[in-house]
Amino acid sequence: MSFPPLNPADESFAARLPAGVLRPVEPRYLEERRGLFRGQAGLLAAPRDVEEVAAILRAANEARVGVVPYGGGTGLVGGQVSPDGPAPLVLSLERMTAIRGVYPAENVIVAEAGAVLADVQAAAEAAERLFPLSLGAEGSCRIGGNLSTNAGGVNVLRYGNTRELTLGLEAVLPDGSVWHGLKRLRKDNTGYDLRGLMIGAEGTLGVITAASLRLFPRPARTGAALVVVESPAAALDLLALAGARIGPGVSAFELISGQGMRFLAETGCAARAPLDPIPDWAVLIDLGLGPVDDPQAALAALYEEAEAAGLVSGGVIAQSEAQRAGLWAMREQIPEANKRIGAISSHDISLPLSAIPDFIPAARSAVTRLGAFRINAFGHLGDGNLHFNVFPPEGRARDAYGPELRERVATAIYDVVAGFGGSFSAEHGVGRLKVDDLERYGDPARLAAMRAIKAALDPNGIMNPGAVLRRADS
Amino acid sequence: MSFPPLNPADESFAARLPAGVLRPVEPRYLEERRGLFRGQAGLLAAPRDVEEVAAILRAANEARVGVVPYGGGTGLVGGQVSPDGPAPLVLSLERMTAIRGVYPAENVIVAEAGAVLADVQAAAEAAERLFPLSLGAEGSCRIGGNLSTNAGGVNVLRYGNTRELTLGLEAVLPDGSVWHGLKRLRKDNTGYDLRGLMIGAEGTLGVITAASLRLFPRPARTGAALVVVESPAAALDLLALAGARIGPGVSAFELISGQGMRFLAETGCAARAPLDPIPDWAVLIDLGLGPVDDPQAALAALYEEAEAAGLVSGGVIAQSEAQRAGLWAMREQIPEANKRIGAISSHDISLPLSAIPDFIPAARSAVTRLGAFRINAFGHLGDGNLHFNVFPPEGRARDAYGPELRERVATAIYDVVAGFGGSFSAEHGVGRLKVDDLERYGDPARLAAMRAIKAALDPNGIMNPGAVLRRADS
Repeated sequence: MSFPPLNPADESFAARLPAGVLRPVEPRYLEERRGLFRGQAGLLAAPRDVEEVAAILRAANEARVGVVPYGGGTGLVGGQVSPDGPAPLVLSLERMTAIRGVYPAENVIVAEAGAVLADVQAAAEAAERLFPLSLGAEGSCRIGGNLSTNAGGVNVLRYGNTRELTLGLEAVLPDGSVWHGLKRLRKDNTGYDLRGLMIGAEGTLGVITAASLRLFPRPARTGAALVVVESPAAALDLLALAGARIGPGVSAFELISGQGMRFLAETGCAARAPLDPIPDWAVLIDLGLGPVDDPQAALAALYEEAEAAGLVSGGVIAQSEAQRAGLWAMREQIPEANKRIGAISSHDISLPLSAIPDFIPAARSAVTRLGAFRINAFGHLGDGNLHFNVFPPEGRARDAYGPELRERVATAIYDVVAGFGGSFSAEHGVGRLKVDDLERYGDPARLAAMRAIKAALDPNGIMNPGAVLRRADS
Repeated sequence: MSFPPLNPADESFAARLPAGVLRPVEPRYLEERRGLFRGQAGLLAAPRDVEEVAAILRAANEARVGVVPYGGGTGLVGGQVSPDGPAPLVLSLERMTAIRGVYPAENVIVAEAGAVLADVQAAAEAAERLFPLSLGAEGSCRIGGNLSTNAGGVNVLRYGNTRELTLGLEAVLPDGSVWHGLKRLRKDNTGYDLRGLMIGAEGTLGVITAASLRLFPRPARTGAALVVVESPAAALDLLALAGARIGPGVSAFELISGQGMRFLAETGCAARAPLDPIPDWAVLIDLGLGPVDDPQAALAALYEEAEAAGLVSGGVIAQSEAQRAGLWAMREQIPEANKRIGAISSHDISLPLSAIPDFIPAARSAVTRLGAFRINAFGHLGDGNLHFNVFPPEGRARDAYGPELRERVATAIYDVVAGFGGSFSAEHGVGRLKVDDLERYGDPARLAAMRAIKAALDPNGIMNPGAVLRRADS
């Protein structure tokens, strides 16, 4: 897995690529949102179809040129930028954006990897169906990136992660062979789950070029409530009660911290939580029900029962779709508020649900031992997925804190996560940011199996070198 | 991947196994239900814990002894019996039957691979939860076998296949290393999906020893109806209508053919369809709803709307849990009736939902060109999964038909399946029965990737040799 001196700028390599796909890589492809990595200048290839992707990988594999697949560039762990090693070829799927087919009777859509997530959602809606993957970056992330990172988002509780939403794939393997696997089948037990393996591999095992994805009936009636809970433990009891009373109609269950709501005000974000005073904890519950159900009544009944059980104390039930959208806007602006405050470090973690009430104070203590910080713990509680982000105290800026402290904070948090049987990356992936963490916290037998699979499918190590697994030569 | 002369009867091999695990293999471990394969006499190992499984695989890997993992023995494609090649060691998980933990607040259960499916269901029920995997063999199949074959069953429509029900695994890899992956997390994006890869690998990549599995709230109220439909096309329209009106409350949607209902009477099965006259097609719909919903009213409203649309013409709505159980008993006895009639060949296939109306007559024509047969096409229509079984005409026995005809019938059907973008194995797996079919119908790039993964994880080819992938030396 070593790189000979050839690189994408090498003319003999460029000459073997399909005409019209190469161009110099513009700076925006080399940046990532948090500024943790910066990619190297070089060349970008933007193929128009799967055959061109195949030709590019074949040439790259022969020339031992690294290839970094690029979707919408919204990843948060540096999977899309290669800061070191020989300069790779950036492979952007931006010209493969077609919706190849919508099959409402089957609840299936087939989309090319470059399609923007919001466009896939819109194509489903035009057919009176729901594609439930939904996350903050949906206006710019591409479905190929969602697939490669097994994206989560706000509707996992009800509909699953991207892997569970995918029926089939078309993908190019590192040797340039094309797997034509765009089946539209709910059941297909004919050998190893290559679909599941490519999803979440972050471009290290090949390039996904298209996918057949599950659609759902659109819930006929929707509703939302923002309710005050005393603690994360009470929020979990409320989740269980909602499951028992409303069942699969609960489409999202988001924990929101007082710190997060205060950040919205502090940073001048337009959205605010309609709660006064700001409580320590709140939960945003979203429902999607059938045509004969009344979401407001269901939420009111849930609230009443939860109040009698001492789980909730106040809050609002959206009385209109506009009010529901307002609650979601508040939830979705919290990452923007976080960004304006400036986190010292951000952690996308998951835990067994019942561990969360003990985890939060334990992690807070571990961080507090390193200094006085503000913590915003929020996220997809229904999935056991918290975003546990650490900020300077009021009046100090993140620039005052160096990378060593960031490292110590991360290790302190991940050690607590590991102690509770959790994961140091719930939905963002490993990328380049968490390669060390995977080595530290990953199961050794599983890591060995991952390395064996990588070596078997990509013996020359051309695919997204240095992401997920350390490069053999580094 | 070749076998030296060592085999499990070899004393030096036996001496390296944990004390008390070995015994001669009894005949029942060498038979499979349809009598298509017969295993070879030899030794059986029944380990008591994961460390013993690890010691066995380590010894087998060093001695190049084949290992055939054995669950409940109910598989239908010969994955559990090795009829040729050097006699393997049968590895039965029958002593690892513990429910290691039930976590109602998390909706998780952790079970060892040898636990019988019905016992896992019962442990969930004792905690007022539902483990939704349900299939005919649930009283004797073991969860490890369900995992290794990614079992489907009647509730896939609502809850997914076994893979979707699994959060984490403990497994022993072919070199004897143990992957401790019993996480109880809904989201964990830390590298390749080894969980999904081991599930459905049919014991060819290692041995699953335990799993953490998803539980669900038990539906508060259930209901079922058996309704007459004119055609599979009408059944699909009814499925879409049920999805729009009742949403995720539809837990099963089974197509039943007139031929199947007549087989019940012809073979003297106790269960009968409460329909007179027996129609060409019927659908069994099952609902699981919340506490404030009325399943009988929902089914009546659905029926009324479907009748107005010309989709249904008669049928029954169960008025009690006993009547619901009676409808299900009828459905579940159809395989027994099939067995008594004696199929020439049985086919577990899946299709894109919208292809089914055209597929059934096309496959019927293809079979009819080979002779006069009776066809029972039935199964999990909601998942696009049909059991398409071919029987002799009345008065003739299956013994009159040889294996060449069986082969021609299978090929005729699978060619039609492939033409419609379907699968030759929806839920039963590949085993040894369908190795040729996988080579014929499988995507070449995917097959190459599967072989590379097999060689990488099991370089000595000890795990379930000859299942899924042909042995290198055969």
